[in-house]
Amino acid sequence: MKKKSQIPNKRLGIIGGGQLARMMALEAHPLGLAVHILCEKDTDPAAQVTKNWHQGDPNNEKDQIDFLKSIDLLTFESELIDMDFFEKLEQSPSTDIQIFPRPSLMKELQDRALQKKLLQHFKIPTAHHLEVSNTEELDKAFSKFKGKFVLKKCRGGYDGYGTYYCKSPEDLKKLHSLMPERFIAEEMISFKKELALIFARSSDGSLIDLPLVQSHQEQSRCDWVVGPIKHPKVKSLIQKIKKALAKLNYVGVIAFEIFDTEKELLINEIAPRVHNSGHYSQDALKVSQFLLHLQCGLGIPLQKTELIHPAFAMINLIGQSTPPTESISLSRDIQGSLHWYGKAESRKGRKMGHLNYSGQNMKKLLQLGLKERKKFQL
Amino acid sequence: MKKKSQIPNKRLGIIGGGQLARMMALEAHPLGLAVHILCEKDTDPAAQVTKNWHQGDPNNEKDQIDFLKSIDLLTFESELIDMDFFEKLEQSPSTDIQIFPRPSLMKELQDRALQKKLLQHFKIPTAHHLEVSNTEELDKAFSKFKGKFVLKKCRGGYDGYGTYYCKSPEDLKKLHSLMPERFIAEEMISFKKELALIFARSSDGSLIDLPLVQSHQEQSRCDWVVGPIKHPKVKSLIQKIKKALAKLNYVGVIAFEIFDTEKELLINEIAPRVHNSGHYSQDALKVSQFLLHLQCGLGIPLQKTELIHPAFAMINLIGQSTPPTESISLSRDIQGSLHWYGKAESRKGRKMGHLNYSGQNMKKLLQLGLKERKKFQL
Repeated sequence: MKKKSQIPNKRLGIIGGGQLARMMALEAHPLGLAVHILCEKDTDPAAQVTKNWHQGDPNNEKDQIDFLKSIDLLTFESELIDMDFFEKLEQSPSTDIQIFPRPSLMKELQDRALQKKLLQHFKIPTAHHLEVSNTEELDKAFSKFKGKFVLKKCRGGYDGYGTYYCKSPEDLKKLHSLMPERFIAEEMISFKKELALIFARSSDGSLIDLPLVQSHQEQSRCDWVVGPIKHPKVKSLIQKIKKALAKLNYVGVIAFEIFDTEKELLINEIAPRVHNSGHYSQDALKVSQFLLHLQCGLGIPLQKTELIHPAFAMINLIGQSTPPTESISLSRDIQGSLHWYGKAESRKGRKMGHLNYSGQNMKKLLQLGLKERKKFQL
Repeated sequence: MKKKSQIPNKRLGIIGGGQLARMMALEAHPLGLAVHILCEKDTDPAAQVTKNWHQGDPNNEKDQIDFLKSIDLLTFESELIDMDFFEKLEQSPSTDIQIFPRPSLMKELQDRALQKKLLQHFKIPTAHHLEVSNTEELDKAFSKFKGKFVLKKCRGGYDGYGTYYCKSPEDLKKLHSLMPERFIAEEMISFKKELALIFARSSDGSLIDLPLVQSHQEQSRCDWVVGPIKHPKVKSLIQKIKKALAKLNYVGVIAFEIFDTEKELLINEIAPRVHNSGHYSQDALKVSQFLLHLQCGLGIPLQKTELIHPAFAMINLIGQSTPPTESISLSRDIQGSLHWYGKAESRKGRKMGHLNYSGQNMKKLLQLGLKERKKFQL
């Protein structure tokens, strides 16, 4: 008689159904995790790649509670998810569900003013700022930053939404209409380029950094990423961030967007999740940021992940409506690969997929990628 | 007003829901293919990794017909699928569905006697054989092969099922009871080791071979694979096989199991599909056998895919009932990765997943993998 045994697969829940959740799900399957997704539609990117789709609003407490009944391990696709319920759960001693990153920390990082305070606390360089919640404070910021600053909503902003530029008294007047609401006003940084750093910290305490990359934005949206980038000041920045992450008991992947002003490296924003600037890792690193994030939650000891090739480029496919399945360039030295998100609809400016290239020469890879993209852009 | 457009994702159908279909599905998602699976249960490995599961019997014509309504592109997880209906479809000029590999060729390869004829036709070395379908022919084989031969069912055998060894008159007597049924009787080959070669041929005609590997069997089941292997005779064998595949207009990945007798390389079996001996490619090659198979069907020009590291080892996880999610060894020079199939039940001898290691030294990788496997074997 054959001995049979049931498999106790661990159930991973992801709040959110977009491309980040999708790419995480694709890395979770080979680990034997049963992947559960909470999102609105079964045509959402992540809902398509698992049988365990849960219809619901990621920010609705009732849907969150229902979702938790099906899972053992929980993580988030977005830093903007409503954390109120999860924070209560984190503080309850009776829950068996592992949640990563910590909801209370997520909540802190969701608020730009609190994020700034954290950076200051850990002496991590960032642009000067003032908290602004009324017209008077707005005027104060105008005077302090000599008429030029960036106004960012404390909560809910992303990809340029919730961000306003003030360069003149006319701008200031317009911004008055936004008050009262919590914002930070930041000095306008004139930077040479934008860089990004990704870290991963496992619940066992091991902590690694991924290569420094350059991240190019178009209309406040990531357009392409290249790397690895060298910078004389990055080492000390990495040390400071690592110290902070350990102190904060952060678990998971976390991205730091950086302004390179030539003089210094200033942290622009923190994204406590897998990040567009780390998509290259799917093809250029031995272990992708998505797998790393899962390893963090599972408590697997992390080891520094190496580059497979000396250089890489990632090019976002934006607003494009046909998957370029049949047109990825491959040559002897260059590895190109397509990551399509399977979105049901295309819109101008919407991230639809990306291309990863690895090889010898960063600039050539980028050129090739941008040329390839043109081929199938509408 | 935002311009929206619907995405015309190509729909890939896979007949069968096991681990091979699962790993193919995981490579199909990033290409933007909508993955549809036809299999019995929603707990089958491949049914878990897509939202498009179609309940049905892969060999039932009615279920096959229903399934075809949902797809644009069709392939098979197994060489044993009933091809009668698909063969008719292949010959019908009205179908828009691309099927790969060609069903009529699949049908030919399903039959060991016809497979042998093909090998002979293309002068590809293989063990001598006789066709056997009654006791008289069985006795003839006994005398021709001097009392020692292997009897293989013409249709439906796999992993040792349908294979019988004859080493004595007593064995012969027992085998009489299997008649009448179509078999081939093959001379018993004493081989030094078993090797395997995988080819991929795209519908655009491009054709590549993957590195030669050693495939170690335990109880007629693949236990581990290492490579790359060098062999003085492999070059001419590859040439012959490539010529045959081009002539046969084969489309997809195809595996050739090989006996290395020290004197020569003899083809043991052909598997017209992705194959256990190619699982290492997920981590050791730039493009895995699963992605290659899809590229073949999509008509993407194939380029020789290179090793990421000098050596690799793949170790099957057999009959194990807990995914070893938390215990994969990683060290600076060695990349270990888990591929768990998510089967709902474990049984003795059942393939539950595999481990891939890449690095510098084949033997060390194998040793490490076998040691790791012991850790979590029940």
